[in-house]
Amino acid sequence: MEPSSSNFSSSPSPFPLNAWYACAYDVEVGRDLLARTICNQKVVMYRTLDGEVCVLADACWHRLLPLSMGRLEGDELVCGYHGLHYNARGRCTSMPSQEGVNPSACVKSYPVLERHRLIWIWMGEPSLADPASVPDLHWNHDPDWAADGKLIHVKCDYRLVIDNLMDLTHETYVHGSSIGNSAVAEAPFVATHGHRTATITRWMEGIEAPPFWANQLFQARDYKGPVDRWQIIRFEAPGTVTIDVGVAPAGSGAVPKEGHASDRSQGVNGFVLNTMTPETDQSCHYFWAFARNYSLTEQRLTHQLREGVANIFREDELVLEAQQQAINANPGHRFYNLNIDAGAMWARRLIDKMVDEESTPAPHQSQRSIVIKQAA
Amino acid sequence: MEPSSSNFSSSPSPFPLNAWYACAYDVEVGRDLLARTICNQKVVMYRTLDGEVCVLADACWHRLLPLSMGRLEGDELVCGYHGLHYNARGRCTSMPSQEGVNPSACVKSYPVLERHRLIWIWMGEPSLADPASVPDLHWNHDPDWAADGKLIHVKCDYRLVIDNLMDLTHETYVHGSSIGNSAVAEAPFVATHGHRTATITRWMEGIEAPPFWANQLFQARDYKGPVDRWQIIRFEAPGTVTIDVGVAPAGSGAVPKEGHASDRSQGVNGFVLNTMTPETDQSCHYFWAFARNYSLTEQRLTHQLREGVANIFREDELVLEAQQQAINANPGHRFYNLNIDAGAMWARRLIDKMVDEESTPAPHQSQRSIVIKQAA
Amino acid sequence: MEPSSSNFSSSPSPFPLNAWYACAYDVEVGRDLLARTICNQKVVMYRTLDGEVCVLADACWHRLLPLSMGRLEGDELVCGYHGLHYNARGRCTSMPSQEGVNPSACVKSYPVLERHRLIWIWMGEPSLADPASVPDLHWNHDPDWAADGKLIHVKCDYRLVIDNLMDLTHETYVHGSSIGNSAVAEAPFVATHGHRTATITRWMEGIEAPPFWANQLFQARDYKGPVDRWQIIRFEAPGTVTIDVGVAPAGSGAVPKEGHASDRSQGVNGFVLNTMTPETDQSCHYFWAFARNYSLTEQRLTHQLREGVANIFREDELVLEAQQQAINANPGHRFYNLNIDAGAMWARRLIDKMVDEESTPAPHQSQRSIVIKQAA
Repeated sequence: MEPSSSNFSSSPSPFPLNAWYACAYDVEVGRDLLARTICNQKVVMYRTLDGEVCVLADACWHRLLPLSMGRLEGDELVCGYHGLHYNARGRCTSMPSQEGVNPSACVKSYPVLERHRLIWIWMGEPSLADPASVPDLHWNHDPDWAADGKLIHVKCDYRLVIDNLMDLTHETYVHGSSIGNSAVAEAPFVATHGHRTATITRWMEGIEAPPFWANQLFQARDYKGPVDRWQIIRFEAPGTVTIDVGVAPAGSGAVPKEGHASDRSQGVNGFVLNTMTPETDQSCHYFWAFARNYSLTEQRLTHQLREGVANIFREDELVLEAQQQAINANPGHRFYNLNIDAGAMWARRLIDKMVDEESTPAPHQSQRSIVIKQAA
Repeated sequence: MEPSSSNFSSSPSPFPLNAWYACAYDVEVGRDLLARTICNQKVVMYRTLDGEVCVLADACWHRLLPLSMGRLEGDELVCGYHGLHYNARGRCTSMPSQEGVNPSACVKSYPVLERHRLIWIWMGEPSLADPASVPDLHWNHDPDWAADGKLIHVKCDYRLVIDNLMDLTHETYVHGSSIGNSAVAEAPFVATHGHRTATITRWMEGIEAPPFWANQLFQARDYKGPVDRWQIIRFEAPGTVTIDVGVAPAGSGAVPKEGHASDRSQGVNGFVLNTMTPETDQSCHYFWAFARNYSLTEQRLTHQLREGVANIFREDELVLEAQQQAINANPGHRFYNLNIDAGAMWARRLIDKMVDEESTPAPHQSQRSIVIKQAA
Repeated sequence: MEPSSSNFSSSPSPFPLNAWYACAYDVEVGRDLLARTICNQKVVMYRTLDGEVCVLADACWHRLLPLSMGRLEGDELVCGYHGLHYNARGRCTSMPSQEGVNPSACVKSYPVLERHRLIWIWMGEPSLADPASVPDLHWNHDPDWAADGKLIHVKCDYRLVIDNLMDLTHETYVHGSSIGNSAVAEAPFVATHGHRTATITRWMEGIEAPPFWANQLFQARDYKGPVDRWQIIRFEAPGTVTIDVGVAPAGSGAVPKEGHASDRSQGVNGFVLNTMTPETDQSCHYFWAFARNYSLTEQRLTHQLREGVANIFREDELVLEAQQQAINANPGHRFYNLNIDAGAMWARRLIDKMVDEESTPAPHQSQRSIVIKQAA
């Protein structure tokens, strides 16, 4: 791909609304009211006595006081100013000092569901909220994998995090003191994409394993020697990136070849799970976890990997927040894309397409979706 | 009254200028320069050697340095940058390195007076500053009453404080842990209004006294038993609210009946005195005091009541500042009024009328004032 | 000069770009990357292995990450995100994962030079950067003088600092607790100006020396008695002010008279060196030093003078930052000039002229420069 120019601020909005976004880890939501801003909308979350998650707009119909400053009475939320009661669907059920309830008295209730240890919210048209379109992060609760992660808050457009994850060559420069080395920056990659996904695949065959993976492979499979290493970055619009990483003994069948299925059984495999949810146009909630398919019961390793990744992501935060500030200081700046930006470029095109579709009549949509189904 | 809708930001300005506003407690102003912003205007206050209060614009005519960074020389204020001298009327009397004084050299001097333990300032047309129109807060220094209070700074439009005070049902929800209970929210009230005032009157006859008042009545009058209780909230435009509260033995004559004057002599009576002064469009100075007409010499009770009210008002501050932020986050939002909002609605109409009058020719004014002199 | 009015915010820009500005003390720039904003432009500074100072725009061509977050490799600066390399002229020399380099890939490189212990940067048209036009601050490294100073950051338009320095009567009011007294405010002065300079000269003949100078003169020259004292403030557009101060025994020849050169050999002489560089429209970098031509080897005196001046300048900072805030709070305010503002007024005219020249065709320029070459 030739270097080309693009304007990061071309979209009317940086995110589509007709999409599932992670709004909380499952354990964060309970009988205490949890306030959070998602896609510029303030919401309040809680669970009913039956454990069902409710998400309502966080502003009382009467005087806009955040409902998160109120309290629960059974399944109802009571405003902390004048005591209006709302049920879990956002309907006002009682008002102070009067018997009737104004029929317009309600607050927005959002479609939500719980999957893969996260709460997912749909910010757009409720009738389009198809549970089948929740991004796949099953590793988070799959018994064949051991996973643990965190939620961090980053003061940048969520798309800058996606740019970052779609190009792992940055490891060499941002994470030079931890996981980076020049091998990744030099390895060739293949970029492909589909209707809602873009994938960057890198195979490094017969190489010396980097220290981290050499150690994992020896501990888990008792193997020392050359390896085949992979990094498969898969973006799912608008905000999810899973990174399939690992090593296997060189020539043991992990590398996919025509006519043979890949056999990773002698290797070790991890998944870096990332889903970024816009908080505002310039800040995001970043839910991540690291999952592995080996040494599943070693709690020490789980703890070590979680904190190791957390330290690395802190290095990214500094870069991402500085980049956001630089973009703000240079309004209208046009950016040039390098080879390494292929994945990020496709991710942004898919996001832009979703945003466009929300403001475009249906026939035009289907025409456009054909156009972009070509190879990178 | 039916619920109706209103737009909180309809006024061109949220406050009239032709009105007396409290700008300081009397003890705050002395021979140290006191800087404060009143109705978006920065002022500096001090007392002359004779004890007269002066309030000048807080910006030197020459280079705008705040005069509050200067110092007093006798009755004159000397700028802390180049030493221009101003007399108590704001006239420049000397300039550095030159003999003459530019005739235009002066800063604005504001009409002020001292009454009811407060300093009152007139921000508008000086010729309209009628000392007779200072709001009545005489309880603050009446020997028949024991009063004490504080000044707090609240980061909200002063009208949100008025809304809060004009509807005491909020006590149930905001002050549930202290003075609130559901009795007030259930009691009926009568709303009336005049040219510059609006009043909400609630009488609860033959009820059990709430613990606070039961205790006050027993300590002061040695009475236990059912009571007649009252709450009479009186708004005086643009920023003063007095709340007449108390209890008397049931049937002892406190309740006003046709043909009989009210006799509260066997009861106990308090006044919550409140006057709110706009600092900016979204912040205010809130001067309050609690006065009582019993146990006048008990300093412990004075202290206890003052700190008790202060704790309650801190709960209001959290709600009011959150409400202001929510209003800002929802520009143009239209609000619906409930029955409980009758008092606040009238208060805002009277404020709007004062603001309108300032930008309207006189004949039109008198026509309008007839129109609004009808019962609620 | 009669008082006249002026509008501080009349200029389209508060500073010319075609001028040398101090951007760092020489010792500040080395092999660590130094980020600073000069005239609203973010720059990064470092020295090559040969000790040459380089200043580049502090934003990577690729994704705008500040280059100051990167690192040096030899004479090249490597971006801390994706590893683009830049040479000392700002040309990109390598990109990750690709062989070619986009020909447009470069960042702005600024003309710089090192003189009088400062690094000077030229923010405007490079072809106009004439090394001969660097302001004269030779006292900073002249062996006949002992000098020491500091860099302070002031949150005000750099021109407010110039106003301050051009009128030393403010010493009486701002520095009343240290160096100020009323003598300076009362002494007459002479104002002159040239093409790029404005000078205020004050001679006080046969006076009692102020305590500071009396002490310096006695320690250095063993003299007690009446003195001739001078203050010669010289502004060089756009941002440099040198103040020649000192005393000599009365009648010893220091006062310049027609037909005789001034002889200061029996006196003591100091120079307050000041050069202010706009950081933004409302903040500046203020490089200052105090130089003396006596007791050159007394380190204790050097230390004492530096810290003494630093304490005095902190008093100015409070005034200057308050003045900037007051100006912002009064947009469009017109200012009146007093006699004492003669020097500041000329300094501002010379700055305005430089700003005008940058947006005006050349013929018009030369006409204007004739017009202003008249006496004050």
